[in-house]
Amino acid sequence: MTRIRLGMVGGGRGSFIGGVHRIAARMDGLYDVVAGVFSSDAERNKSSAEDIGVEASRAYGSIEDMIHGEQARADAIEAVVIATPNHLHFEAAKACLEAGLHVICDKPVTATLEDAIKLEKIVGRTGKHFFLTHNYTGYPMVRQMRDMVAAGELGEIRTFHAEYVQDWLTEPMEHRGAKGAEWRTDPSKSGAGGSIGDIGTHAYNLSTFVLGRRPSHLLADLSSFVSGRRLDDNASILLRYENGAKGTMWVSQVAVGNENHFTFRVYGSKGGLEWEQEDPNRLWFTQYGKPKQLLTRGGAQATSGNTGSIRIPAGHPEGFLEAFANLYRDAALVLRGKATDRKLSLPGIREGVEGLEFVDACVRSSSANGAWVDVLA
Amino acid sequence: MTRIRLGMVGGGRGSFIGGVHRIAARMDGLYDVVAGVFSSDAERNKSSAEDIGVEASRAYGSIEDMIHGEQARADAIEAVVIATPNHLHFEAAKACLEAGLHVICDKPVTATLEDAIKLEKIVGRTGKHFFLTHNYTGYPMVRQMRDMVAAGELGEIRTFHAEYVQDWLTEPMEHRGAKGAEWRTDPSKSGAGGSIGDIGTHAYNLSTFVLGRRPSHLLADLSSFVSGRRLDDNASILLRYENGAKGTMWVSQVAVGNENHFTFRVYGSKGGLEWEQEDPNRLWFTQYGKPKQLLTRGGAQATSGNTGSIRIPAGHPEGFLEAFANLYRDAALVLRGKATDRKLSLPGIREGVEGLEFVDACVRSSSANGAWVDVLA
Amino acid sequence: MTRIRLGMVGGGRGSFIGGVHRIAARMDGLYDVVAGVFSSDAERNKSSAEDIGVEASRAYGSIEDMIHGEQARADAIEAVVIATPNHLHFEAAKACLEAGLHVICDKPVTATLEDAIKLEKIVGRTGKHFFLTHNYTGYPMVRQMRDMVAAGELGEIRTFHAEYVQDWLTEPMEHRGAKGAEWRTDPSKSGAGGSIGDIGTHAYNLSTFVLGRRPSHLLADLSSFVSGRRLDDNASILLRYENGAKGTMWVSQVAVGNENHFTFRVYGSKGGLEWEQEDPNRLWFTQYGKPKQLLTRGGAQATSGNTGSIRIPAGHPEGFLEAFANLYRDAALVLRGKATDRKLSLPGIREGVEGLEFVDACVRSSSANGAWVDVLA
Amino acid sequence: MTRIRLGMVGGGRGSFIGGVHRIAARMDGLYDVVAGVFSSDAERNKSSAEDIGVEASRAYGSIEDMIHGEQARADAIEAVVIATPNHLHFEAAKACLEAGLHVICDKPVTATLEDAIKLEKIVGRTGKHFFLTHNYTGYPMVRQMRDMVAAGELGEIRTFHAEYVQDWLTEPMEHRGAKGAEWRTDPSKSGAGGSIGDIGTHAYNLSTFVLGRRPSHLLADLSSFVSGRRLDDNASILLRYENGAKGTMWVSQVAVGNENHFTFRVYGSKGGLEWEQEDPNRLWFTQYGKPKQLLTRGGAQATSGNTGSIRIPAGHPEGFLEAFANLYRDAALVLRGKATDRKLSLPGIREGVEGLEFVDACVRSSSANGAWVDVLA
Repeated sequence: MTRIRLGMVGGGRGSFIGGVHRIAARMDGLYDVVAGVFSSDAERNKSSAEDIGVEASRAYGSIEDMIHGEQARADAIEAVVIATPNHLHFEAAKACLEAGLHVICDKPVTATLEDAIKLEKIVGRTGKHFFLTHNYTGYPMVRQMRDMVAAGELGEIRTFHAEYVQDWLTEPMEHRGAKGAEWRTDPSKSGAGGSIGDIGTHAYNLSTFVLGRRPSHLLADLSSFVSGRRLDDNASILLRYENGAKGTMWVSQVAVGNENHFTFRVYGSKGGLEWEQEDPNRLWFTQYGKPKQLLTRGGAQATSGNTGSIRIPAGHPEGFLEAFANLYRDAALVLRGKATDRKLSLPGIREGVEGLEFVDACVRSSSANGAWVDVLA
Repeated sequence: MTRIRLGMVGGGRGSFIGGVHRIAARMDGLYDVVAGVFSSDAERNKSSAEDIGVEASRAYGSIEDMIHGEQARADAIEAVVIATPNHLHFEAAKACLEAGLHVICDKPVTATLEDAIKLEKIVGRTGKHFFLTHNYTGYPMVRQMRDMVAAGELGEIRTFHAEYVQDWLTEPMEHRGAKGAEWRTDPSKSGAGGSIGDIGTHAYNLSTFVLGRRPSHLLADLSSFVSGRRLDDNASILLRYENGAKGTMWVSQVAVGNENHFTFRVYGSKGGLEWEQEDPNRLWFTQYGKPKQLLTRGGAQATSGNTGSIRIPAGHPEGFLEAFANLYRDAALVLRGKATDRKLSLPGIREGVEGLEFVDACVRSSSANGAWVDVLA
Repeated sequence: MTRIRLGMVGGGRGSFIGGVHRIAARMDGLYDVVAGVFSSDAERNKSSAEDIGVEASRAYGSIEDMIHGEQARADAIEAVVIATPNHLHFEAAKACLEAGLHVICDKPVTATLEDAIKLEKIVGRTGKHFFLTHNYTGYPMVRQMRDMVAAGELGEIRTFHAEYVQDWLTEPMEHRGAKGAEWRTDPSKSGAGGSIGDIGTHAYNLSTFVLGRRPSHLLADLSSFVSGRRLDDNASILLRYENGAKGTMWVSQVAVGNENHFTFRVYGSKGGLEWEQEDPNRLWFTQYGKPKQLLTRGGAQATSGNTGSIRIPAGHPEGFLEAFANLYRDAALVLRGKATDRKLSLPGIREGVEGLEFVDACVRSSSANGAWVDVLA
Repeated sequence: MTRIRLGMVGGGRGSFIGGVHRIAARMDGLYDVVAGVFSSDAERNKSSAEDIGVEASRAYGSIEDMIHGEQARADAIEAVVIATPNHLHFEAAKACLEAGLHVICDKPVTATLEDAIKLEKIVGRTGKHFFLTHNYTGYPMVRQMRDMVAAGELGEIRTFHAEYVQDWLTEPMEHRGAKGAEWRTDPSKSGAGGSIGDIGTHAYNLSTFVLGRRPSHLLADLSSFVSGRRLDDNASILLRYENGAKGTMWVSQVAVGNENHFTFRVYGSKGGLEWEQEDPNRLWFTQYGKPKQLLTRGGAQATSGNTGSIRIPAGHPEGFLEAFANLYRDAALVLRGKATDRKLSLPGIREGVEGLEFVDACVRSSSANGAWVDVLA
């Protein structure tokens, strides 16, 4: 299988997520990053290309330049990675898709629901692949949760509880020069959601991934605990499903003592599953009336979603980067036509739209003083 | 200090909580159970007395008999323990208080808010002591949480997250001969709350104990997942405080894999605390920007609420019974006039009323399809 | 069942273990402490009696006085609890046994192996009961380990690893006024073993309790890391069994960060068990090739040793005091003739002798520069 | 920095460790695997090259062929990775070093101490770089342990306890077609050590890495619990240091319930550190008399060894592959002359010799029935 040639938009020097995408792309030797518009700052664009090992001539000043420049080449890029702040996703994705490029895009897919819906149409019209890096779905134990719920091992699902809580915005870091904090707390760049957009969309996506269904109604109580902050930094969200199931989500960036505490617990009429991102190689499974069991990555009773997503044996911990790389590997198999079925479980433009619907519903609910709202406006 | 002579109402053979009260009373040698109305069933009443070591003549057939029988004695009981199902608390407490006896009562204080309010007046009028066994407040690390919040070590409190989840009602145990399940799911005995009354009141009480304040508004989404169950077995509750703080509570008796998972986590502008009932000798404390610290029962940096509530050194685990016994010990000190200040932190009739207000508000909210309601109707 | 009347030797004001014995005796209402020689200091003896609620006339100045004074009474003590430093155990036990009293004695049973052997003969000759409070055998999950090993659930036992490590002697506390540190590091009071006598005997006893067998050979490397300390404060011990099994023990009182870290892990040809004293309500069980299972106190798949040793349901943590009290409860049943079979699993004089044999063998090995020695000299 | 061109010896299809080396080489984009002798089986050699993306013409039939074939090219390999069973390391390394190639070699460095010593001379004579992949030294928290010990934060080191226990050889897998089990239990391929060579050398290396010193004496009690097994599958090892420190190691491949349980705990006169490979992003640090602190990868109070070894922020778990890749990254910096100082902490031929000295000493001790021996024969 020949390597897929990638261009990058954003993700230059100093970007956390840009580096993550590149490591994920390299992990299994299935991609080469060969071009990019790494930064709007010309100097940083150039130095980023150098860091990454991209030829200077392929460090372009704009997306249009990249599309044009690459079209002329025999070894042109086949896909782009979009790793900019949220508000720049839409235009970048649109231009690339219309130029015939596949897209791997960071989440949330766009800054607004309106843009997400437009983009879904563009994806449909162009017929190109669009992958959204809801990377937590790449964890083997998360895929095992999905498999077990689908196989009915928990019985009828009754309730789940998701938490995605951090503490890095406990103080007003956006006024202390932290770039990541600046745009994430700026509605013009981040969109209508603060913590709910940045990390809440991950929790919401994980719930749809594991449960295989979306809520019909939700209620959100958003707070901005840091004085002067323009977007939410803490959110309590209740969800209701048409089949009577209920869910709870707690999202925070001001919960002191939590680095990246993302947990998912789901309970049915027969059993329960409990998973924690900071200890990702383990999954607790309880059948009613029996002892808790500790399922592990690559361990006994692993499902296909687990064993198909690992590189090394049980006991040798894999982490965040390997989970991210699982999305890249699966995307490569889809792009090369080796595993069209993988597409089913890979987050794409549909999940992107759903994420923005979630943000939109949370904001509508909170604006109505925390009232129940339809998830679809 | 002479031992306090106790009579018991309920708590005979087969009762879980009756045995707990007796162990708690015995733990420090400050009480003797010398009389009781252990069961409405004459045979069980008699055999329970035997089990407990109470003279047959002091195993009374009714509360009135006990009051009358004891008044005639030089060694009459001074206080009663009420450990019946909820709906019997009120009449028992009223009769005893009016007969000049102090009362130690299991929670929730009564089956209805109306009764709780009446009882508060009776307590006021009789001037007797009334202790409510919200036993989780007896844990040394819970008392340390209260001390640290009060001392401002977390800064301004922003949010807390309480969970009290179990799994023993996952299936319809109330139809399988489980006595504890029968009355707890029967509105005529339990009151308007199912899980919210049985365990939610503990979580709510802990929040007021630690935070030192009550919410102004709440919203509850109650479910009865088991078909035919007449009271809630799962609840998601959001709370709002006048100072802008927010809280979340998740209460369940159908979360498979949870024996008695009661956790309390609270976060402020400077720090966070995290505690779990199944590992009660430890408390996580994080100051923003510093490593997490593991505080322990009797360990380094213990507050007075911690060191004053232990019997054995750090590393030698104490548990549920010792925490329960801490309430009994503190109550004894109050009853014997040795430590009137202890009364301040011991749950009493006020906390009982507040617990029923909580249940009432949850039911009102849920009846209004999960709307925000004033905590005080 | 009438309460057993106890006299105490030692364990007065300021003694950690004296208080533990009394709480354990009270927990189930099966004993009354009615007499004692609580301290060699007359004033402390008197005040201790007051604390405990013993009549002043029964706070005796010597064991002989107690024996004599009690013999004259209709309500004389039936048994004594010995809770002095080690070197005083022998004379106290001898006098009481010969006066017809049963004995409950703290560990190690005596300061020297010679005394232990003599005492075993006295026990045999007098026919009185002798209970040794190796309290860790009272934990429900430890009893479950023993049950499961005996039932062959691990297959043939191959190896175990025991750790009993603390940190409270990291610095020379014996020169800073800590009474417990003074006598424990003084060979004339503690005997030939420091950490190996104080806590190593617990670990050794647990190994014989769980495995049902003793090693034939051992090797010990003892250290005294604190300058000037006369007894060991750290020990590495290897054990060999006639059936080819091997064991490892690590004992320390200078391992900074360990409060009372006592773990026992045992592995056979089919399975493994792992237990930790600071989290005593849980036991990990793995069958080869299957997921780890978390067994709990009173939970699913509890053995009779587990369910017979609990007071409250799963999820409501019991601790050190309840385990200690289990020995007292079982001893009461034996003393009252209700459960002679219980005696089989209760540590007694035999286990006391074995503990001193262990200390003796460790010291012989270490004196020979860490050579293998026969456990029996 | 141009990528380093690598050839591989061994590590073809079906090899666990071959894949690990390639992922580690790719992780940071600093290497390209462009040639190899992947398998002695011609068909597997070819298919492995295809899997990896190496041109068919550069999948050589022998090391000699590879050396010869590559010397003719302008883009010749610069270094080789040796990932064969142990007994083939020596000849491969010798040939490559003498052909002017740098070597990255899996552990243990050779099957015999004699070969290791010879190889050290060859490395010296050729002046080429030799890296030994004791990958656990690549974990950020392990590097932080080393930094903290070196900085004196624990005071004078007194004792450490290392465990490396697994369970995959609990049953005779070597007779059930498991290739990895076959050669590891075969003295002609593995050398004189079974578990002590395969994983014990990691534990020993970690101890020298963290402590900065080697023991003078050791004692090993080796067992082969599985009937017919020719090498040890369980080992208890005691270590003594010239400065009076003591260490304990427990190594096993038959401890049911342990996937890859590698822990290191070290204690000094002032503090203690505790680390576990299956939860590698955390490190417990206790200063005597203060609460335990949880240090994290990239978290508060990270040392330079920690922060210099991470790719993503705290809370986003890194694992085994990232630690392995840290060795590759550091080796690349050394090979390109960018960071000669890094070489100091990278395991090399010296650590390889020391590992074989450890195996040799263990075998000598065990042959003498578990006697103390000089580490250096």
